[in-house]
Amino acid sequence: MRADDPPLIESPEVDRFHRVTFRLEAPQAEKVDLRGIQRTLIKLTKDKNGVWSVTVGPLAPGIYGYSFIVDGEAMLDPENPRMKPERSPETSLLEVTSDNPLPFQWQDVPHGTIRLHDYRSKPLERLRRLRVYTPPGYDANPTKHYPVLYLFHGTGDTEATWTEFGRAHMILDNLLAEGKAQPMLVVMPDGHADLDDEEGIGRRNLEEFENDLLQSVVPYVDKNYRTRPDADHRAVCGLSMGGIQSLFTGLRHPELFAWIGGMSAWVPDVDSCCATTLNDASVAKSRRLLWLQIGSDDPYLPQYKEFEVAMERHHVKRDFHITEGAHTWPVWRGYLSEFAPLLFH
Amino acid sequence: MRADDPPLIESPEVDRFHRVTFRLEAPQAEKVDLRGIQRTLIKLTKDKNGVWSVTVGPLAPGIYGYSFIVDGEAMLDPENPRMKPERSPETSLLEVTSDNPLPFQWQDVPHGTIRLHDYRSKPLERLRRLRVYTPPGYDANPTKHYPVLYLFHGTGDTEATWTEFGRAHMILDNLLAEGKAQPMLVVMPDGHADLDDEEGIGRRNLEEFENDLLQSVVPYVDKNYRTRPDADHRAVCGLSMGGIQSLFTGLRHPELFAWIGGMSAWVPDVDSCCATTLNDASVAKSRRLLWLQIGSDDPYLPQYKEFEVAMERHHVKRDFHITEGAHTWPVWRGYLSEFAPLLFH
Repeated sequence: MRADDPPLIESPEVDRFHRVTFRLEAPQAEKVDLRGIQRTLIKLTKDKNGVWSVTVGPLAPGIYGYSFIVDGEAMLDPENPRMKPERSPETSLLEVTSDNPLPFQWQDVPHGTIRLHDYRSKPLERLRRLRVYTPPGYDANPTKHYPVLYLFHGTGDTEATWTEFGRAHMILDNLLAEGKAQPMLVVMPDGHADLDDEEGIGRRNLEEFENDLLQSVVPYVDKNYRTRPDADHRAVCGLSMGGIQSLFTGLRHPELFAWIGGMSAWVPDVDSCCATTLNDASVAKSRRLLWLQIGSDDPYLPQYKEFEVAMERHHVKRDFHITEGAHTWPVWRGYLSEFAPLLFH
Repeated sequence: MRADDPPLIESPEVDRFHRVTFRLEAPQAEKVDLRGIQRTLIKLTKDKNGVWSVTVGPLAPGIYGYSFIVDGEAMLDPENPRMKPERSPETSLLEVTSDNPLPFQWQDVPHGTIRLHDYRSKPLERLRRLRVYTPPGYDANPTKHYPVLYLFHGTGDTEATWTEFGRAHMILDNLLAEGKAQPMLVVMPDGHADLDDEEGIGRRNLEEFENDLLQSVVPYVDKNYRTRPDADHRAVCGLSMGGIQSLFTGLRHPELFAWIGGMSAWVPDVDSCCATTLNDASVAKSRRLLWLQIGSDDPYLPQYKEFEVAMERHHVKRDFHITEGAHTWPVWRGYLSEFAPLLFH
């Protein structure tokens, strides 16, 4: 058997007390730290074979993203096949489970399916990726039609991050099993339309993303899935960069989206994007939800407050809250658990 | 906008002549090489900002897996979100396209869907991952039932490698568009059942993988998909480690699989695994195909030849070929393009 680079060490190793040992073979490195498990870096120590290690915990059940910082450079754990999908891959994924699974962990309930597509974007003239969650029973009920939540990721993420790391599919499975949400499709596109815009919050990325969404993604989904293709059965929501995208496009297109959400969102300039629709009384009446949440420790809090002032000025009915937490995935998983149950009633 | 670690450099960058520039920011590194683009390593050179780079090509259209070797350690390209799914992640993915797409590249034809599942394995008592390809038209024809190809990966791979890197879904889409294959499901499980067996060709991994396949995967697929649940409509095939798995389980279970394939396969010990079924004339008569291919430069060639001798000794009807090539993905993509058209006639 030819086995290139067989892993001789195990990392991460979780014991029954939820203590976790991280290991990295790096004989030439001078310093290795572990980032992501706690607020500060954790030092690893090197043994005589050049294997660095540290044992931490016990850790609370949950999903952790971590990196090794090797002589100052962040890298994945090369022994761990699970990772957070990122534009610049450097974060490995550790899941700690227990007998009492969390709302975003696998439970013994009916499960939906994640479906992967490559589609040709007409406005962007290139191949793009798309993930679609279908709820349990979608295939077994071939005449039933479903509402759709369009769910957008943050600047460093890819179309895979909301499922692989955010666990949107498990959150929905678990809500459905408890009768807390309507069965819905969740469509997760790639948020980076303008590839020259690294941060993704420039006007051009907003407009190109909207073009792709409206001209390619929504028609693709309505063609290939059994949707209810009207505004009352379409929601749009996103986190951080995805938040400005959902607010921008959602507020500009009330004819397409009656449910709008934002999580820890960068926010659009209301006057230049959507003052007309905001001031249209019939639009306001037909909008079912404008929902925004942000953590009290989130660096975007000033933008949130400015946006709230703008909404107040336009007399917009809204459901806005400042919660605990910062700009992190545990917060966003919780927000999805709160937002999804509000939809499509 | 908070943007952690914004990529300041682009890698890989493909120009219109298919020349490719690879870049890595590593100011502290003493030596950086590029592996995977040609047979030998390619040296990168460092500029005054600590960015290493090299331009190669023009490269032929295709899919390349490459790593940076930084002071002797293989790593991913941190600027490239696309990678080969591996048990020990260290290979980034570069696709070079042209106006004449290859058989494993996206073409403007009807496309199937890849579906992701987590299932609870009864014999292994843990959560496992599974990918299922459904052909174009699967959802649109809710009364049609399909044959199933169970397709297994190699030792360093995961359940995602056959699609992400092998492009099984695009190979099938393109064959179907040309009328060269029957519409079929392709089921891709995780080949590592015995987690203590790194190489995966020990008897225990073979048996635990078979237990999982027969007790959990096949029933899961037959329950959740519209299959034709009999041996005449089930095929099993795999590459390398997956080859010994497909031959082992396929030959032992003629009641389940009438079509058996192996690619560059490690091979099972016939006398201890399946002499009984091989010597059963009624089994031999009902078997539709026993197919095996290997490259003339493959290190497993001696095993292939031993296996052929064993098959000859048992008078087994077979379709075995030594082709050009080595133990590589370009060979396996080609083999799938040859094997799939033989199935389910």
